[in-house]
Amino acid sequence: MDVSEFQDMMRRLYFHRDSKRSTEGTYAWLVDEVEELGEALEGDNKEALENEFADVIAWLASLANVTGVDLEKAALSKYDGRCPKCRSMPCQCTSRR
Amino acid sequence: MDVSEFQDMMRRLYFHRDSKRSTEGTYAWLVDEVEELGEALEGDNKEALENEFADVIAWLASLANVTGVDLEKAALSKYDGRCPKCRSMPCQCTSRR
Repeated sequence: MDVSEFQDMMRRLYFHRDSKRSTEGTYAWLVDEVEELGEALEGDNKEALENEFADVIAWLASLANVTGVDLEKAALSKYDGRCPKCRSMPCQCTSRR
Repeated sequence: MDVSEFQDMMRRLYFHRDSKRSTEGTYAWLVDEVEELGEALEGDNKEALENEFADVIAWLASLANVTGVDLEKAALSKYDGRCPKCRSMPCQCTSRR
């Protein structure tokens, strides 16, 4: 499924709720989900880990919806097949990514 | 572009570097990028905001690569077109999402 299709699914499922929440509130949810992903990384439950990855990308898409950002367009505008810093594939940066 | 294709692009670009970093180190990068996204939300620069959304999904994909998670499969396993909690479309949950 395209990134944009996933973002559209989140819009159809949740925009009526997301749009009533402040951007800050939606961002706070994303932060919570990232923290839960960190906790799942410490365990050994693969299904729980996948569940948290799902929630992070879902809330990232919700946040993109409430801020009017096209997540796929944003991602491919920066990451177009070459490293945005060194322009190589694979990345040849000598400093941190 | 499919979520899985984006994850593959991140693998081709960065896995040689991501795989040398600990999972914790890659997660720490994701957290940093989420913080930068939060800072961009406070500004009014749309391009900077899109740039930070791109970095968050890029690092989420990198983290999925180093932990052996198929991000698209994980996302669609939980979010299949209906709310995973109330099973409605759109979501009709009465409690928080």
